[in-house]
Amino acid sequence: MSVQAVEATASATVANLGVGFDILGMALQAPCDVVRAERSDAEGVQIVAITGDAGELSRDPTRNTAGIAAAYVLGQIGAAAGVRLTLHKGLPLASGLGSSAASAVAAAVAVNALFGEPLDHAALLAASLEGEAAVSGRHADNVAPSLFGGITLVLGAAAEAIYSLPVPPNLHLALATPAIAVPTAHARAVLPPSVPLKALVHQTGQVALLIHALYTGDLALLGAALEGDQVIEPARAHLMRGLAEVRAAARARGALGTVISGAGPTLCSLCDSEAVAERVAEAMREVYAELNLPAAIRVTQPALHGATWRAL
Amino acid sequence: MSVQAVEATASATVANLGVGFDILGMALQAPCDVVRAERSDAEGVQIVAITGDAGELSRDPTRNTAGIAAAYVLGQIGAAAGVRLTLHKGLPLASGLGSSAASAVAAAVAVNALFGEPLDHAALLAASLEGEAAVSGRHADNVAPSLFGGITLVLGAAAEAIYSLPVPPNLHLALATPAIAVPTAHARAVLPPSVPLKALVHQTGQVALLIHALYTGDLALLGAALEGDQVIEPARAHLMRGLAEVRAAARARGALGTVISGAGPTLCSLCDSEAVAERVAEAMREVYAELNLPAAIRVTQPALHGATWRAL
Repeated sequence: MSVQAVEATASATVANLGVGFDILGMALQAPCDVVRAERSDAEGVQIVAITGDAGELSRDPTRNTAGIAAAYVLGQIGAAAGVRLTLHKGLPLASGLGSSAASAVAAAVAVNALFGEPLDHAALLAASLEGEAAVSGRHADNVAPSLFGGITLVLGAAAEAIYSLPVPPNLHLALATPAIAVPTAHARAVLPPSVPLKALVHQTGQVALLIHALYTGDLALLGAALEGDQVIEPARAHLMRGLAEVRAAARARGALGTVISGAGPTLCSLCDSEAVAERVAEAMREVYAELNLPAAIRVTQPALHGATWRAL
Repeated sequence: MSVQAVEATASATVANLGVGFDILGMALQAPCDVVRAERSDAEGVQIVAITGDAGELSRDPTRNTAGIAAAYVLGQIGAAAGVRLTLHKGLPLASGLGSSAASAVAAAVAVNALFGEPLDHAALLAASLEGEAAVSGRHADNVAPSLFGGITLVLGAAAEAIYSLPVPPNLHLALATPAIAVPTAHARAVLPPSVPLKALVHQTGQVALLIHALYTGDLALLGAALEGDQVIEPARAHLMRGLAEVRAAARARGALGTVISGAGPTLCSLCDSEAVAERVAEAMREVYAELNLPAAIRVTQPALHGATWRAL
C-alpha cells in the first residue's frame, strides 16, 4: 500500500545527559520537526519549502540534512519516483537539541512511509545518520532517541549498538535556550585529549549510578549522577554563560540536576513534577534576563515513542 | 543480649568485573573465611590461631586485617572486655579474590555479634575497611560485596556510596587461580596514568551496558560488556600468563565472558548454567596445565546475602 503524501514528526533530543557524554540521548515530547513528503514525477529529492528556520537552512537537498536522508531512503528502496519535501522546523537551530537529527529522522520516516515502509528501523537509522553526518558528524546520540524514542544508550552507529533504557515515569524537564552561539566544533575542540585514570574511574562510576537510577526510577539519584561529570562540563563551562547561576537558581526552585543539552547552549533541568518544572524554567529565564541574555524556555517530558507519521 | 562465642563467615569477592575497574564487586557463595570470636578477660584483640594460610599471615593482631578490624569494632563500642580470634582461611592468599577483605569483614561481624550487634552496617563497613586499608589500601570494592552480598556499585568508602545491583538468577561462575604471583601494587603500577578521551567514552559506554545487562538479566550481553574493557586489562594482560588462551578455551566451552578477578591472578568466567561452568573450569585448568602452571579451579554462584554469623 502506498499513499500520495505523508507527514512525519520527529522530536528534539537531549544528548549526553551530563556524564553520559557521547553515549546517551533522550527524546523529548516537544519541540518537533515535521516533514511532509509527496510523490513527484521528477527524480530524486526536491525541497519545496522550509518554514521556521528564518531562512537559514539550505533548500539544496544535497546540503540539507532532511534532503540527504530522503535521498538515502530513495536509493535504498530503488524508487523510480521522486519526492517533494516540505520541512517545518519546530526546533531552534544550533541549540543543542538535535535540530539536524530531528529533520533527518522526520525526512527518512516520511519518505519510507510514502513508499509503504519497505525499510526497517535499522535502515532508517542508517538513513538518518547519513543526513546527520553531513552536518554534525556520524554520531547517533541525537538520531537514535529521535527515531526510537525514550532514553537510549548509543554505543555505535548501527541499530544493534543502540539499547533502550527505562524512562522514569515522573521525569519532567525544564529547558532554557539562551541566545549564545556555541558551535559544536568549538565545543568539541575545548575537550581535553586525555583524562587521568582517576577521572575514568569517577566517570564510569557516575554512569553506572545513572543507569541504576534510571532502572530504579530514583530521580534524585539520577540528578546527582548526571551532574557527576568532572570531565566534559568543566571543559565546556566557559562557553555556557550563566551555567553556574542557572543551575543554582534551578536547584533552589526544586530541580534535581541541570546539564548541558548536547553541546549547548540549551540547559536541561530534571524535575519530578510539571509544577516544579514550570517554576524552574521561569527561574532559568530570569537568571538569563539578569545577564541580558534573552532565553527561550520550555517545559516538557521525555517522549516514550519515537518518530511517527500519518498519511495525508 | 550477648553470647560467649560466635562464628562469622564472609565470602570471596570478584572486584572490578572487567570494565568496572574500581567501582564494581561481586560476592561469591564460596570460598569463605570464617572467624571465631570469644570474649576474653584480657583487653584488646588476641589472635589465637590461624588455619589455612600455610603460616603466611601475621598472628600479631595489629598487623593482621582481621585483628585490625576487630580492634576497630572494640574501640567503636567501647567494650571493656577483649576478644580472642581464631581465623580459618578458606580463601587463597594473594589470589585476587579479596582474601584480606573477607577476613576483615568476618572479624568485624563476629566481634560486633559477640557484643549484641551494637554497630550498624555502615560502622561495620568502616571497621572492615580499616582492616583492608592496612593490607590493600582503603578501597571498598571487595569489602562492600563481602559484607553486604550481591553485586555492588562502590563509589566511595562510606556506606551511602555503596549501591546494590541486581544479580541475574542464572549466573554461574568458573574460577581458575593459577600459581602466578601478581602483587596488587605491581598490577596498579602498570596502569596508564591517563587515557584518551575516546577510551573514556568507550569505557563509560561499556559500563552503562553492563548495568543495563544486570537489570535485564541478559547474561550474553553482560559477558560482552565485562570484556569491553580497553584500558585496564590490556595494561595488565602481560602479568596474567595464559589469559588469552584461557579465555578462548572458556568461550569454546560456553563461557559468556572472562575477566581478571581484582588484580589477578584468578580469572573468572561467566556462564549461564552450572554444567557449563563445570566444563569451563576444567578447560581453564587444562590450559594452565599445558603452560605448566598448576591452577586451582572452582565453580560457584554470586552470593545474594552478605556476611553471616551464628552463636556458638
